[in-house]
Amino acid sequence: MENKMLIFGHKNPDTDSICSSLVMEKFYKNLGFDVEAVRLGNVNKETEYVLNYLGILLPREIQKVEEGQKVVLVDHNEFNQSAEGIESATIEAVIDHHRIANFQTKDPLYYRAEPVGCTSTILYKKFKEENMAIEKREAILMLSAIVSDTLLFKSPTCTQEDKNACEELAKISGIDINSYGLEMLKAGTDLNDFTPEQLINLDAKSLSKGNTKYVIAQVNTVAIEDVLKREEEIKEAIKKEISENGLDLFVFVITDILNSNSEIIAIRK
Amino acid sequence: MENKMLIFGHKNPDTDSICSSLVMEKFYKNLGFDVEAVRLGNVNKETEYVLNYLGILLPREIQKVEEGQKVVLVDHNEFNQSAEGIESATIEAVIDHHRIANFQTKDPLYYRAEPVGCTSTILYKKFKEENMAIEKREAILMLSAIVSDTLLFKSPTCTQEDKNACEELAKISGIDINSYGLEMLKAGTDLNDFTPEQLINLDAKSLSKGNTKYVIAQVNTVAIEDVLKREEEIKEAIKKEISENGLDLFVFVITDILNSNSEIIAIRK
Repeated sequence: MENKMLIFGHKNPDTDSICSSLVMEKFYKNLGFDVEAVRLGNVNKETEYVLNYLGILLPREIQKVEEGQKVVLVDHNEFNQSAEGIESATIEAVIDHHRIANFQTKDPLYYRAEPVGCTSTILYKKFKEENMAIEKREAILMLSAIVSDTLLFKSPTCTQEDKNACEELAKISGIDINSYGLEMLKAGTDLNDFTPEQLINLDAKSLSKGNTKYVIAQVNTVAIEDVLKREEEIKEAIKKEISENGLDLFVFVITDILNSNSEIIAIRK
Repeated sequence: MENKMLIFGHKNPDTDSICSSLVMEKFYKNLGFDVEAVRLGNVNKETEYVLNYLGILLPREIQKVEEGQKVVLVDHNEFNQSAEGIESATIEAVIDHHRIANFQTKDPLYYRAEPVGCTSTILYKKFKEENMAIEKREAILMLSAIVSDTLLFKSPTCTQEDKNACEELAKISGIDINSYGLEMLKAGTDLNDFTPEQLINLDAKSLSKGNTKYVIAQVNTVAIEDVLKREEEIKEAIKKEISENGLDLFVFVITDILNSNSEIIAIRK
């Protein structure tokens, strides 16, 4: 068992889980604690963008914790979203913005949840409450988490507190929320690595009605026009899919997650 | 269903449950919310002392809450310690200093727990964080709760944060923690209303080993000498108990909860 406290977010970590772990690591280190931010799984491209931007190495990956291991959970509380063995770990603290369920402790602990859009918004408040200076690195980590969780304030879970925190963090870091945020979200929805065949199969559902067989496929992006640059190749791939699988219809939906706009390419047999 | 949020502590409310409910009521009212502090059962003599001191009427008693009722829990979270129907209420917030168990919500909420000795210590911090002025009434309520839960800082659950908060609250209220606290704890452990027969049966365990039958009984007080004023009457009551129940030994322990000192009256057949 490790003597230091381990800090981690949920499995399949998103940007909030990784950034909030790193920010809490700094918070505790400032207070003199022996802590390490770790992660429960691979990070996505969006998070990679943030870490690269800051030149931060990936936190160490763990899968399970030993009995009695001191841990701090960020961005989650439900045991089924947490590390293996969490039931017998010593949970020292939880900072989260989700409902509470499938969670219990033997002893009193520090638990801080608020119904806001992002864990980092709560962390921002904690720094303020402790009169702890926020450095540029942590400001950018928290800003990135808020932009990610609120989709640049467009998500219905976004609150005024998230906006206020993000704007203060932008001032500290000297970062333009919109241009940086858009680049970050773009990186997360980067579809350039995929071939047209992969694109139309990323999230494809095969359906049938009577004798009609059809497929509905969707991709998420922040730049529909980027996807449409490859419109001809995509159409070719769809036609191939139709003839190979005897489909009657293939509907390909390209959704802009920021504006909830979609463009549709539909091809019949 | 009531439109306003109901705020309450645990069943068999203690001083922290009642005082913290009243303080949270004030906190929310300051923020413009429609709230009412209520209670889940009779209050004890210690709490009565506090309310009388401040000239505050008892909060309204409720037993259950209706589906969807907005509630704020203080000083507890476990559903089995809460109001009937809590499973289907809408829990807006929890402020507590206990472990988390038997608790879950459908939606995100405000949850604030800290491993300190008293809920009111956390409330004190909340007022500070909101830059909200603490008035004399709330200062005395919080101070009373802290003195009660920490037994005048003597309890092993007492932390430096509890002490600091209590001292600040003493300054605001102009109250001497020791003299007021001792009077309050005395009121709570007032044994004068009990006859000697009742005293020796308040918390009595009948035991036997081989052919020997004995009883161990205990009372808690902050003034052992007050109890010992009735030593002769108590001894008479014990002798009567021994002869009536064919006991071999009766041990009566008078414990000073502040110093963990005990005086023992032991009488054999």
